[in-house]
Amino acid sequence: MKHLGRHVLAEIYGCEFELLNDIEKVEEIMVNAALEAGAEVRECVFHKFSPQGVSGVVVISESHLAIHTWPELGYAAVDVFTCGDRVNPWDACNYLTSQFRAKHMSARETKRGIFPVTEEEEADHQVAVNL
Amino acid sequence: MKHLGRHVLAEIYGCEFELLNDIEKVEEIMVNAALEAGAEVRECVFHKFSPQGVSGVVVISESHLAIHTWPELGYAAVDVFTCGDRVNPWDACNYLTSQFRAKHMSARETKRGIFPVTEEEEADHQVAVNL
Repeated sequence: MKHLGRHVLAEIYGCEFELLNDIEKVEEIMVNAALEAGAEVRECVFHKFSPQGVSGVVVISESHLAIHTWPELGYAAVDVFTCGDRVNPWDACNYLTSQFRAKHMSARETKRGIFPVTEEEEADHQVAVNL
Repeated sequence: MKHLGRHVLAEIYGCEFELLNDIEKVEEIMVNAALEAGAEVRECVFHKFSPQGVSGVVVISESHLAIHTWPELGYAAVDVFTCGDRVNPWDACNYLTSQFRAKHMSARETKRGIFPVTEEEEADHQVAVNL
């Protein structure tokens, strides 16, 4: 079986209220996380909630990065979905954890789009292994 | 322990090429899925890839719905994240499966933002249970 992409859901705890409530800063960090992982940014949309909190998504050629912040809890829910082998979602995830100065992060990866490998692909793989 | 939200990752297989490649139709179905689940739509962003494929996100007050389509495989990767108790992510998910006329869907829910319940909240819960 092969998969089309990897989707990391990350819980980021112990961040500062001001940082998680600053829409411009949250957007800057999210875009830079995409670039840091080598992704190509296509579209961005960010929204500031009242009295606090930011939601936003960066659409990349390889899928997306999304964030929802609860500044009053010092918490952000992040997810990074990348398709293909070129971009590693964990690079973006670790960058976000560092830039949001999180005291604790826990995350889980799910494989997305699982398909059987064709005989032709299996043969290609065998050739690659035997080289 | 309590959680802030629920995040459903759904794999939708066996859809028609034309439907998954139609950016306007994909956006319409995604927005309607949010409304169907009782969510409040805040922002939308959709992108059409060449030669095929659509990526898009609907930011809702309760978090987001995202989709990435591979029309050539009849496949769409969907995720629906809702916070609070008012909106059920499975309502959106089932609506999407139906509207994209998927032959097969598999999905998994992850609880997001897990925090310990305070003594005060526990007491409130006990009162509610005893009523």
